Amino acid sequence: MASLEMIVADIAAEMADAPDRGTVADYIPGLAEIDSGRFGIAVIEADGTCHKAGDADEPFSIQSISKVFSLTLALGAIGDRLWDRVGREPSGSAFNSIVQLETESGIPRNPFINAGAIVVADMILGAHEPIEAIGEILRFVRSLADDDSIFIDERIARAEQETGFRNIALANYMRAFGNLRQPVERTLGVYFHQCALAMSCHQLARAGGYLMAGGINPATGHSIVSTQRARRINALMMTCGHYDGSGEFAFRVGLPGKSGVGGGILAIAPGKASIAVWSPGLNPRGTSQLGALALERLVQRTGWSVFEPSGG
Amino acid sequence: MASLEMIVADIAAEMADAPDRGTVADYIPGLAEIDSGRFGIAVIEADGTCHKAGDADEPFSIQSISKVFSLTLALGAIGDRLWDRVGREPSGSAFNSIVQLETESGIPRNPFINAGAIVVADMILGAHEPIEAIGEILRFVRSLADDDSIFIDERIARAEQETGFRNIALANYMRAFGNLRQPVERTLGVYFHQCALAMSCHQLARAGGYLMAGGINPATGHSIVSTQRARRINALMMTCGHYDGSGEFAFRVGLPGKSGVGGGILAIAPGKASIAVWSPGLNPRGTSQLGALALERLVQRTGWSVFEPSGG
Amino acid sequence: MASLEMIVADIAAEMADAPDRGTVADYIPGLAEIDSGRFGIAVIEADGTCHKAGDADEPFSIQSISKVFSLTLALGAIGDRLWDRVGREPSGSAFNSIVQLETESGIPRNPFINAGAIVVADMILGAHEPIEAIGEILRFVRSLADDDSIFIDERIARAEQETGFRNIALANYMRAFGNLRQPVERTLGVYFHQCALAMSCHQLARAGGYLMAGGINPATGHSIVSTQRARRINALMMTCGHYDGSGEFAFRVGLPGKSGVGGGILAIAPGKASIAVWSPGLNPRGTSQLGALALERLVQRTGWSVFEPSGG
Amino acid sequence: MASLEMIVADIAAEMADAPDRGTVADYIPGLAEIDSGRFGIAVIEADGTCHKAGDADEPFSIQSISKVFSLTLALGAIGDRLWDRVGREPSGSAFNSIVQLETESGIPRNPFINAGAIVVADMILGAHEPIEAIGEILRFVRSLADDDSIFIDERIARAEQETGFRNIALANYMRAFGNLRQPVERTLGVYFHQCALAMSCHQLARAGGYLMAGGINPATGHSIVSTQRARRINALMMTCGHYDGSGEFAFRVGLPGKSGVGGGILAIAPGKASIAVWSPGLNPRGTSQLGALALERLVQRTGWSVFEPSGG
Repeated sequence: MASLEMIVADIAAEMADAPDRGTVADYIPGLAEIDSGRFGIAVIEADGTCHKAGDADEPFSIQSISKVFSLTLALGAIGDRLWDRVGREPSGSAFNSIVQLETESGIPRNPFINAGAIVVADMILGAHEPIEAIGEILRFVRSLADDDSIFIDERIARAEQETGFRNIALANYMRAFGNLRQPVERTLGVYFHQCALAMSCHQLARAGGYLMAGGINPATGHSIVSTQRARRINALMMTCGHYDGSGEFAFRVGLPGKSGVGGGILAIAPGKASIAVWSPGLNPRGTSQLGALALERLVQRTGWSVFEPSGG
Repeated sequence: MASLEMIVADIAAEMADAPDRGTVADYIPGLAEIDSGRFGIAVIEADGTCHKAGDADEPFSIQSISKVFSLTLALGAIGDRLWDRVGREPSGSAFNSIVQLETESGIPRNPFINAGAIVVADMILGAHEPIEAIGEILRFVRSLADDDSIFIDERIARAEQETGFRNIALANYMRAFGNLRQPVERTLGVYFHQCALAMSCHQLARAGGYLMAGGINPATGHSIVSTQRARRINALMMTCGHYDGSGEFAFRVGLPGKSGVGGGILAIAPGKASIAVWSPGLNPRGTSQLGALALERLVQRTGWSVFEPSGG
Repeated sequence: MASLEMIVADIAAEMADAPDRGTVADYIPGLAEIDSGRFGIAVIEADGTCHKAGDADEPFSIQSISKVFSLTLALGAIGDRLWDRVGREPSGSAFNSIVQLETESGIPRNPFINAGAIVVADMILGAHEPIEAIGEILRFVRSLADDDSIFIDERIARAEQETGFRNIALANYMRAFGNLRQPVERTLGVYFHQCALAMSCHQLARAGGYLMAGGINPATGHSIVSTQRARRINALMMTCGHYDGSGEFAFRVGLPGKSGVGGGILAIAPGKASIAVWSPGLNPRGTSQLGALALERLVQRTGWSVFEPSGG
Repeated sequence: MASLEMIVADIAAEMADAPDRGTVADYIPGLAEIDSGRFGIAVIEADGTCHKAGDADEPFSIQSISKVFSLTLALGAIGDRLWDRVGREPSGSAFNSIVQLETESGIPRNPFINAGAIVVADMILGAHEPIEAIGEILRFVRSLADDDSIFIDERIARAEQETGFRNIALANYMRAFGNLRQPVERTLGVYFHQCALAMSCHQLARAGGYLMAGGINPATGHSIVSTQRARRINALMMTCGHYDGSGEFAFRVGLPGKSGVGGGILAIAPGKASIAVWSPGLNPRGTSQLGALALERLVQRTGWSVFEPSGG
């Protein structure tokens, strides 16, 4: 097997030439203006070794990947009571579908669809001010990555707020069922800011380290969550991490992962590596086209799929 | 860590005393009459060592677990063209839901819901006689388990046929979309017989060995499927193996698995073990109540979850 | 106002030249081969006067229009208990949708969608032989029209049976909920034959006379159903008579009506006239394109809409 | 036949003793506090004669009945282009369902479900200030009823606004599809005020006169809408006036009608009478329990059903 360093470099080179780069999200200018030619990858091994290639140090909007961190934070704050208000099953429909909420009494299917993440944001907000909750999320992600340069892109947050009618609909709909507890605008304020977190592949791979390492931040040795909880978050990323493309991602890549419409994907090879890729062009399911392809090749060449004898 | 032998024995002892045993399927007499007190477990390690406890040698109706073997067989016969007619995404609804077929043009979401497995049966049938196709499935499963005593329970097959109105509806519905190619009765004849396969935990764990071992039957060394295909079947078992309870199973157990309404579950710890459990009482999602609990405990005590650093 | 005779003749002349004639149903040869240039109309007034134009004496396949007569027959046989097994609400979806059955426990929304009419056929069949039930329906329609030349087109019935996979699916699906009581093939045998009734506009307008006249056959003076029941059947034709185009038909035409994919429409102006039109080309909702247009013009020129001061 | 005066008095007397009075809407105090013992009826004949009984002069919250008047107003303002943004079919689901919007691109099924009426309010609002649009609606209804004492209950409007999360969700959802053009809060401001119109049965029956009389206000002789438009509004009231209970209402009553959760119903017997009933207890579909019963009896005793020979 080639060295991991070489594998990562090869993949980045292959992606630079890939003809079919997907479609960049265009619903807000802050995303639409990103060059579809960008590609970055960062792989952090269990021992902390980091391999990077391409635009691995370029911050991008992590969007829905933030749902992994907010879920972790909320579970820490309120524990498994969280599951009274959010399900754990794949949705079988698009990321912003409202249908399921109507037939299932306002309980979103999982914390990684928009509705579920909005409920999680509502929990984090609680009785606090939105600015405090946003600050808490930011501090948490900075501490996970051990990097205080991570920031929230206010321009993106504002644009989301101005165009996010579906999310406003989802939030009000859940409020009608009593599954939002805080005023809708405040909860959405937290949610839109969380989605506007800007991070590089390198920062993101570092921040995901605790999911590779059984709940322990491998850089600091601090326990972020219990081993069981880390395992369960990974399980949710596997079954629900890519909206209605989660089955396909598991089929092709075979790692727990979470994608965002900014073109980033965080993937976890438990015990092996925390991996972040970024390429802004999306496939029809809203997952980074080249990001998924790069992960598929990485797994083929490393044998890291959790579904292989050597994987996991 | 306790020895695996002891872990398996402990779990069987715990299950013997478990108060909440779920509800035995009662739609046909052949299932309804099974004593809910039964419990069996068989764990076959990568080196072939087998640990059994409880009713591990008692044959039971494997029902939907057969979908794993028929998928493997059909992929071998027609390759990845299979995916033109069957999807790879969790369904987000019950095992026998017909709604999704209406909105998605008769293409079932995955090969592990009934509709998907009926399409797979239609492929296996092809231009053959049903009796030949049934024979082929039986021979395949016998060869996987290296055990010619595995049989099809004709009484169960007949009862399924007489009461299987939903499956007849699913099949005709897909036929209306052109996604069944053979006469409906013939395809269903194959499907109902496949579901009536009777196997013990021991036989089932042996039959699942190739999924643990990267596609190689560990007992014989024969290649059943490519490593990539074995990995992908495992991925489908993870995201779709338990109907609308797949997310929960991944969350709690963290292994690829496939359950049947006869109370059996086949679970795969890649590179570690092929595991079969059986207890006829079902949870509301149709998965064995004690079977899932036993697997959860097994994984906790062995660390075999694919989502843990030590797992996979 | 022009004389009714002249209005009818004018409309037929206008329809002869109409450029947009819709699309002839092509799922079975017996329908597909009909010339889209055909158009017929027959209007029978309360006093029995009949006005005809175009192909008013040409028999065509009445298809779903038969659901009006089978409903009448079944209500006569079992009374309002019929409504325990069939609803009375518009479906909000296509004529052969199966979705609603899943969420509403196998109870079809109304007797004029396929699923509802199949349940009605099941009631008419009861413990009889299919051939007897078919004979009973045929005799009933013949007596309504006072015309023994009305027949069932066996070729059409057979073709429906061979291609009717969706209807077979619907029937089996309802059987799974216990809402069909007779063997599916036998119930469908009745249903497919009923749909294959062949009648001319003239015969159809005569057969519908009892709905114009408060339940009394105006030709014979015999009571077919009570006034209340005639009124209620008219109400169902208004709200549910054209599948998911019923609202549009009420909006444009304003008469109780029932269409069939053979291109016929029966419309009732209570106290004024029983009207049958036929033109085989269908609009996207499955209603005769020119038939609906002809009725719209007839109502405009006669003021017969039930929603006008002079109407009803 | 008894005199209409007597029929109306008898019905009011019967309703006073009715044991099963339904359930008063309790989602806002302004509705919840109404005594379920109230019942009023007003029948205005074509010649202007008015028959009243019970609490016919007591103002109540007309709620969704206002959708008839706002539709009339919007059609007058923008004509049939209105139908580009609102459908004309029964919804087959609850009054506040959001599912249909997702599958039909944000176009509500008809103007009498909440989503449809919100689009209509958006049209009336246009470039105006909400206070102007509300004033316009109020003036229109006052002029229809020729009664300047009709008012908007601000307390109800405010309570709707504070608890109307589903309506806010619907509005934002349609905004996401571009089917609301004005800022959501402004459109909803109009909508919530329109629903808070307070009128008595007597006022309501007067206001509905133009629908009985082919578009002419029978009291003043002024043309409100064309005959065709009056007929079409009646048709929509017949097929869509009672949410998912419209079929049942047509079946039992057989008149175009529109109900509101305040317990009022406006029903039109074209050419015969404009009828308003009020009783605050609702049936499970959200229509006044006694209101519907009173109308059923009125129609039985007068023969006014549009589906009868003598009706319409």
